[in-house]
Amino acid sequence: MILTVTLNTALDVTYSVDALVPHRSHRVGEVVERPGGKGLNVARVLGTLGHDTVVTGFVGGPTGAVLRDLLAPLPPRDALVPVAGNTRRTLAITDRTTGDTTQLNEPGPQVGAAEWAAFLRTYGELVAEADAVALCGSLPPGIHVGAYAELIRTARAAGVPVLLDTSGEPLRRGIAARPDLVKPNAEELARLTGFREPLRAARDARRRGAHAVIASLGPEGLLAETPEGGWRAAPPAPVRGNPTGAGDSAVAGLLSALAEGLDWPGRLARAVALSTATVLAPAAGEFDAAAYAELLPRVTVEPYAATS
Amino acid sequence: MILTVTLNTALDVTYSVDALVPHRSHRVGEVVERPGGKGLNVARVLGTLGHDTVVTGFVGGPTGAVLRDLLAPLPPRDALVPVAGNTRRTLAITDRTTGDTTQLNEPGPQVGAAEWAAFLRTYGELVAEADAVALCGSLPPGIHVGAYAELIRTARAAGVPVLLDTSGEPLRRGIAARPDLVKPNAEELARLTGFREPLRAARDARRRGAHAVIASLGPEGLLAETPEGGWRAAPPAPVRGNPTGAGDSAVAGLLSALAEGLDWPGRLARAVALSTATVLAPAAGEFDAAAYAELLPRVTVEPYAATS
Repeated sequence: MILTVTLNTALDVTYSVDALVPHRSHRVGEVVERPGGKGLNVARVLGTLGHDTVVTGFVGGPTGAVLRDLLAPLPPRDALVPVAGNTRRTLAITDRTTGDTTQLNEPGPQVGAAEWAAFLRTYGELVAEADAVALCGSLPPGIHVGAYAELIRTARAAGVPVLLDTSGEPLRRGIAARPDLVKPNAEELARLTGFREPLRAARDARRRGAHAVIASLGPEGLLAETPEGGWRAAPPAPVRGNPTGAGDSAVAGLLSALAEGLDWPGRLARAVALSTATVLAPAAGEFDAAAYAELLPRVTVEPYAATS
Repeated sequence: MILTVTLNTALDVTYSVDALVPHRSHRVGEVVERPGGKGLNVARVLGTLGHDTVVTGFVGGPTGAVLRDLLAPLPPRDALVPVAGNTRRTLAITDRTTGDTTQLNEPGPQVGAAEWAAFLRTYGELVAEADAVALCGSLPPGIHVGAYAELIRTARAAGVPVLLDTSGEPLRRGIAARPDLVKPNAEELARLTGFREPLRAARDARRRGAHAVIASLGPEGLLAETPEGGWRAAPPAPVRGNPTGAGDSAVAGLLSALAEGLDWPGRLARAVALSTATVLAPAAGEFDAAAYAELLPRVTVEPYAATS
């Protein structure tokens, strides 16, 4: 079983409008709602790939109830922990004319100490059954900034590989707890290390504690710095489309391949093929299964000298 | 009892952001939710004025459940009729820096024939107990454009005064059913009649069937064309503030004064004082009770020659 953790789950709401103009009134043509938050997106991709997947994190209030109803028919199993507050909504306003999107993210519910303690109990039980764990996204209000470090230590103590995909201070604190993998994008990596050059930044992130650093370089693919060596993985050609969810698909690719015992080139090829197939899919956050199958053997994975 | 009808109720959601910039990502600072839709706003003001008030219309889905929870502690009694679809949200995005607001309105749930029939039964029972009825706002999808005309005929057959506050084709069709009052703004009146000059347009609207036409002229107050004469009512001085809900407060003023047996000048003075006190209130759609008491004796109501 693969466990994904989304402490700040979200109901992703998409509004389509003709064109968003500040300080005007708009009729919303269509309203689409789906379960969101990075860990839930990762779990959905894992479920589509056929992996037994469990999602945990916090859920609460009327928005949380809608999220759970939408999650129920999907493959990932719901082990979300209730909170008194209301799960946040993330609103994407899409201009019908240009396809451009404006994003508004609610902060999420305040999580209390008793709720965090209840989550830790659930998490501990789930980790004991997991083949791999992904810790994904932002922290809701009330959760201490070292929360991911705490969750990483639990997973490592249980001997379960753990991937961290977050940013800012939670990433900095999390890395110090020595996660097996981190998957920052170039921007997050630069903010963490102060180095804009991805290879130099990835090496610095390893020195800070991450066993392996998989940096996503957008359309150019992935850069991997690992104990077994360094690689660059790239799609056969750059593609155009909606990059929403491409990073979450890369996490699902890395994690599923890790759980299946694939080596680094196999993991990276799957991650690049899945994230490219996500950019190509018409619906944000879904992946195009035919494109994935077609891309997988054509991803280039090139080694370069390992650093440790 | 005063009955207000809101066929397309809404959960009014307000997001505060630093500044809305299209195609960017925004953190929402604060999320405020309150029951909305014109008839619910009118009822809330009537409740604050101490009038026994009942709200009906449609409510459904998870958003409808939130709306009902927020409505429960307020004075108006909830006689909303359930629908299978989800009640709409109306989103106001407020820029913290300028106070400017961007509005996004969901369309509302599809209402089926059986649901409309259930509403008509409830409405018929409520009208029989009502001293006055207000029919407010837009029609949800699935409701025929002559719906307000039907509701007006029911109220008039029961001998209950009925006010219509809507726009576009539902206003045009509704007026033909001879409501006691309509309260369009200058823009709606111009669209209805083709005349931009408010007095000429109000007279034309009366010829189309409305017994009395109360046109709201924004900060300049109200213009009334009635069987008893014509008046202009204005606040002692123009005020600055948030005009959201000012029109709904005017409706509440007209309706409560009508139910109390006040004459036209008394009704108009109350409507102008309430709507001006709404513009002055810090929270959108609320009214400043002290400002209302202070303004009421200072509203000027000047007659001019009646037209019929």
